[in-house]
Amino acid sequence: MSKTNPASGMRDFLPVDVRKREYVIGIIKQTYESYGYEPLETPAVENIETLMGKYGEEGNQLVFKILKRGEKLAEQLAEFGELAESSNSGNSANSPNSLSDLALRYDLTVPLARVVADRRNELPKFFKRYQIQPVWRADRPARGRFREFYQCDADAIGSTSAIIEAEIISAATDILERLGFDDFVVRINHRQLLSQIATDAGVTNETEAFVALDKLDRIGQQGVLEELVSRGVDQSAAEKFLSLVTSDISNPELDHVIELCHSPKVKIDPSLARGLSYYTGTIMEINVPDIAGSLGGGGRYDGLIGMFGKEQIPACGFSLGLERILVVMDERGMFPPEIAESRAADVMVTIWNEETIPESLKLADELRKQNLRVLVYPEADKLGKQIKYADSIGVPFVCVLGESELAEGKVTVKNMKSGEQKVLERDQIMQVIKI
Amino acid sequence: MSKTNPASGMRDFLPVDVRKREYVIGIIKQTYESYGYEPLETPAVENIETLMGKYGEEGNQLVFKILKRGEKLAEQLAEFGELAESSNSGNSANSPNSLSDLALRYDLTVPLARVVADRRNELPKFFKRYQIQPVWRADRPARGRFREFYQCDADAIGSTSAIIEAEIISAATDILERLGFDDFVVRINHRQLLSQIATDAGVTNETEAFVALDKLDRIGQQGVLEELVSRGVDQSAAEKFLSLVTSDISNPELDHVIELCHSPKVKIDPSLARGLSYYTGTIMEINVPDIAGSLGGGGRYDGLIGMFGKEQIPACGFSLGLERILVVMDERGMFPPEIAESRAADVMVTIWNEETIPESLKLADELRKQNLRVLVYPEADKLGKQIKYADSIGVPFVCVLGESELAEGKVTVKNMKSGEQKVLERDQIMQVIKI
Repeated sequence: MSKTNPASGMRDFLPVDVRKREYVIGIIKQTYESYGYEPLETPAVENIETLMGKYGEEGNQLVFKILKRGEKLAEQLAEFGELAESSNSGNSANSPNSLSDLALRYDLTVPLARVVADRRNELPKFFKRYQIQPVWRADRPARGRFREFYQCDADAIGSTSAIIEAEIISAATDILERLGFDDFVVRINHRQLLSQIATDAGVTNETEAFVALDKLDRIGQQGVLEELVSRGVDQSAAEKFLSLVTSDISNPELDHVIELCHSPKVKIDPSLARGLSYYTGTIMEINVPDIAGSLGGGGRYDGLIGMFGKEQIPACGFSLGLERILVVMDERGMFPPEIAESRAADVMVTIWNEETIPESLKLADELRKQNLRVLVYPEADKLGKQIKYADSIGVPFVCVLGESELAEGKVTVKNMKSGEQKVLERDQIMQVIKI
Repeated sequence: MSKTNPASGMRDFLPVDVRKREYVIGIIKQTYESYGYEPLETPAVENIETLMGKYGEEGNQLVFKILKRGEKLAEQLAEFGELAESSNSGNSANSPNSLSDLALRYDLTVPLARVVADRRNELPKFFKRYQIQPVWRADRPARGRFREFYQCDADAIGSTSAIIEAEIISAATDILERLGFDDFVVRINHRQLLSQIATDAGVTNETEAFVALDKLDRIGQQGVLEELVSRGVDQSAAEKFLSLVTSDISNPELDHVIELCHSPKVKIDPSLARGLSYYTGTIMEINVPDIAGSLGGGGRYDGLIGMFGKEQIPACGFSLGLERILVVMDERGMFPPEIAESRAADVMVTIWNEETIPESLKLADELRKQNLRVLVYPEADKLGKQIKYADSIGVPFVCVLGESELAEGKVTVKNMKSGEQKVLERDQIMQVIKI
């Protein structure tokens, strides 16, 4: 008997879960389509070189690597054996990367940059794409932190115009509003503004400073101060840096984005850092009060595509965190009832005996042609047991094809909520069943 | 500069590809829902023990394995080093499996069996689920053979009734008919009938015989005969086996399924074998004349779930091959024009200059509220260049907000196909734009 649980940090989604996820994904797709973003899909598995060196040191360690296969694996293992023999060095000479040629997608931005570099001539100059697919990270699983989770990204390639930022923010806020959120805030900042602040404060290693600052909402100002110092920033520079990023600062580029967004929910926050190293301009993040971390974030990255192609192509994108959105919507009871209830079917057709099964299948077929979702009870159990089953799985109507109904060419339709039963001609059924 | 191609055997899907895939997936979902199948999703990554030993020897070798991480990997590598030193045996003692704890999903049936064993109490007694997700196989990539591909599965758990088989076949044929296929054949057979034939012919190792027989449509009768003999089947037994499976045979269980399906497209074929080892009863496959291999296949597997749980639970399922369906539909030109054309948007709004951008964004917003997909040209280029761009990406209408339009509070709407232009009040735009 094998273990039956999913792998650590991974989840199975039962029908009610899938329906909630698809409801949210449907609204995200529809909204991105309305802004002219087009769908793109990339493979789960990438060449390992595509992913390495794009996410910083921490990111590199979280990439799931796939073992080489067949002869290539055998060669690699043989080499390890020889190395161990000759150098007597145990595992020190064994680089795990040489065992692996492929890896699982870590985000959707790097694959996009690769595709844009690869297919530049087939894509519009101003390519706007959305992509809703899972990503994998070998993080330590914890409450609300999974090793497989969906990202919902929208990115616009090919322009440095502030229209790009404004539309990306507007699309994300449209989505959240359509889902029923009204208490979110969009914080924006600019990487060059942050760099300037770091320079002014005397911080020499800005990458380290941004990684520390990114933890502000989790560990607070004192925590960031300690982290800055532990990452080698001079104590007085760290204090000055923190003091500057937590005061009001204005910036003409950010003011322009805010003007174009035309929404009171968008605000400048000079302490917003974002973790990823590839951002070069505006950065943004959306938060709600009742959850740590963000519902989504993004920014401008004008250098990433150039890492794959001959051409530097400007780009800006936003990633909505599906899992966090679902958590908050569940906690707040924000799903429409038909989604939250997740009925298996609209109607169940009963079976009288083995000989009458073709009649039941025929009725089910007729009902399906009326756009109903129809179950046929699969076994000739007692009628009471069949109806009890329909009740147990929440099917709202049962069509009984018993001995007398079959003899008269009629159907008894039972409303499972009211208990009401009506004997009907077949062409009258739809008047009673209202879904 | 990194490589930009997807990994070997993997594919990027540009918008036109995604729209075709989603069109087919949409019809598959809708049809399965109409039969009361409910959606299930399982993780891409499974514990390696979950997958091993379920697909036969060939299958085992095609599973993508994920490298262990951190300390566990270091321990394993250290062990390899010690082994190599002490035994001087190079790689012979190194089992690649000990380097791996996780693996990529190989099909959707084994994960379903695991979930059913794991969540039995949360699921209906007669659980019917569909699942449309990618699977991964480390096969040698070839024309039409990919390492990542989608399966579209429907399975019914908990009943041995022939209604299950009949509905699974009817749902699959409904899907193909809705997609526009009219020349497919559903071949069915029964594993116990095949076993009986094998016994009658004097074949002792039936697993080997079925694997060979499964290749009949690819390698022909002579090929199967040779394969049977090479797999250790006695020459005369092999000849008798082949002669029996290619003659007409009737079987009451299969006759019953055919009666319930009520379709002239369903036929008994005693030579149908199916490759997978877990089938125990009816097996089925759908083919069209113009492609080798099947559009889908499945069967009854009453023993698989018991490999995961305490309970033996009967089950039967069918898997549609999305990639093959797409290939045939593309070759035959079966996609509706709006899918095959894949327009980026319905309307593009132009920009006059930097100052008028907010006006263009406002118009775009108004049009989105009318359920149009609207692009805003992102840069204040010359008007001719903007309109040329709309033409190049196939957008059918352009809304021009030029100097005179802005002064008068009007919009010029250009029909890109006819070339016709009309200067309109804003509330008249929708009368002209018909998508």
